[in-house]
Amino acid sequence: MEQLIVVKIGGNIIDDDKKLASFITSFSAIPTKKILIHGGGKLATKLAIELGIEQQMIDGRRITDAETLKVVTMVYAGYINKNIVAQLQAHNCNAIGLSGADANLIAAVKRPMKNGVDYGFVGDVVAAPSVANWQLLLDNNFVPIIAPITHNNEGQLLNTNADTIAQEVAKALSSIYDVQLIYSFEKSGVLMDADDDDSIIKSITPHYYQALKEQKIIFAGMIPKLDNAFEALNCGVKKVVIGHAEKLTQLITGTAGTAITHDDDSNK
Amino acid sequence: MEQLIVVKIGGNIIDDDKKLASFITSFSAIPTKKILIHGGGKLATKLAIELGIEQQMIDGRRITDAETLKVVTMVYAGYINKNIVAQLQAHNCNAIGLSGADANLIAAVKRPMKNGVDYGFVGDVVAAPSVANWQLLLDNNFVPIIAPITHNNEGQLLNTNADTIAQEVAKALSSIYDVQLIYSFEKSGVLMDADDDDSIIKSITPHYYQALKEQKIIFAGMIPKLDNAFEALNCGVKKVVIGHAEKLTQLITGTAGTAITHDDDSNK
Repeated sequence: MEQLIVVKIGGNIIDDDKKLASFITSFSAIPTKKILIHGGGKLATKLAIELGIEQQMIDGRRITDAETLKVVTMVYAGYINKNIVAQLQAHNCNAIGLSGADANLIAAVKRPMKNGVDYGFVGDVVAAPSVANWQLLLDNNFVPIIAPITHNNEGQLLNTNADTIAQEVAKALSSIYDVQLIYSFEKSGVLMDADDDDSIIKSITPHYYQALKEQKIIFAGMIPKLDNAFEALNCGVKKVVIGHAEKLTQLITGTAGTAITHDDDSNK
Repeated sequence: MEQLIVVKIGGNIIDDDKKLASFITSFSAIPTKKILIHGGGKLATKLAIELGIEQQMIDGRRITDAETLKVVTMVYAGYINKNIVAQLQAHNCNAIGLSGADANLIAAVKRPMKNGVDYGFVGDVVAAPSVANWQLLLDNNFVPIIAPITHNNEGQLLNTNADTIAQEVAKALSSIYDVQLIYSFEKSGVLMDADDDDSIIKSITPHYYQALKEQKIIFAGMIPKLDNAFEALNCGVKKVVIGHAEKLTQLITGTAGTAITHDDDSNK
């Protein structure tokens, strides 16, 4: 099967013009088929504050009311997405900026109430994305750049976690491509010591992951990221790597970051 | 050659949810290949005011400074574009929302200074759009929904007139399709009396257009629209019709609106 590299880029890199430009240069140079899924960074929050839209948080999770949905759609699918595309096109990369609504790439459902909490216009990807339109785009050498906005197939846009989208897309496309999934962000990988960016754990297997969680070495925001990574690995994705966006080339070649691997072929 | 219908929808319809929904139903039912180019409506101006961005106007033309470019990119390519796409997808229309930067669909240059006036980040389409990526999308049954944002191929987004984009795209694609161009907006067509929506001029030829301008029956904003229409007709577009967005089906079948025709086959 042909190789496909799915890259998620985290928000903090997007907020930094210089780091983003460096990332874009590396991404455009990837010689295989590729997809970029970007987060939102602080721009959406900043715009919401400027517009006087109050951010409602419940248990650390943002509630996406109608006004917040409008802001994230504008910032993610408009401003960030089109600026990344224009920069990639300047590097002769045939980028095409899309949301989950476009070509029905990612259908979702509005998150059901949980414990009496309505999270608003937040989308949970329920069904595996249909591969037909993805394949048409990729096989015609388009490079999809995906904003984390989905739709419910009934005309409603939904705010959706970009890590989850990366995982779902990587899983679905594993049926037709040899998929490598890269979670790139502002840290060098999964760290033994969160304050020491050199303490990279080279590889994590499911068993080791359990131990790292029990020892509280892995905690907070890293847990959903790693859950996503293992879920992808368990569903056909060949390789998952987590690491620094500025080392994208090395993450792909396996010389930087943290590799998420099966217990069998662990090289920890 | 296969038929392609290029529809421009004007801003005032986009501002009205009910009228937009009706238009979307008609557009989704067009049985041929199709492209939709949408304007911006009043949402961008409203957002700019909310953000305290001063609108600079020179000779009735808006100056697009960096902050205004950000706003129009968010509103046109983000909010409006993705909402139209989600609604079309709900009608089983395989809509894919794009800007001119995506797949390098519409390259432009920053408008040069004129009489000492810098219009800012406004794009003039200079070269004919390359048809290759358009054809790939259309021949794979995607329905492109285009926001009026272009790029300069060097990473810079540019705010561009949607009527002009519609004309340029229709012209370029005339080399491979039998193209009909529809300018739809909130009026029934080109009117003899601007205050009487029933006074539709059924057809306008170049000679008649000259006479209508001399008699001041056609003036102001209608002149660039008609110039665009005749330019398209003179460059290979088979048929150009101007009329009400709520009568899209009739505009296509030739039973509503104003037809822009050559002098030879005038039926005025």
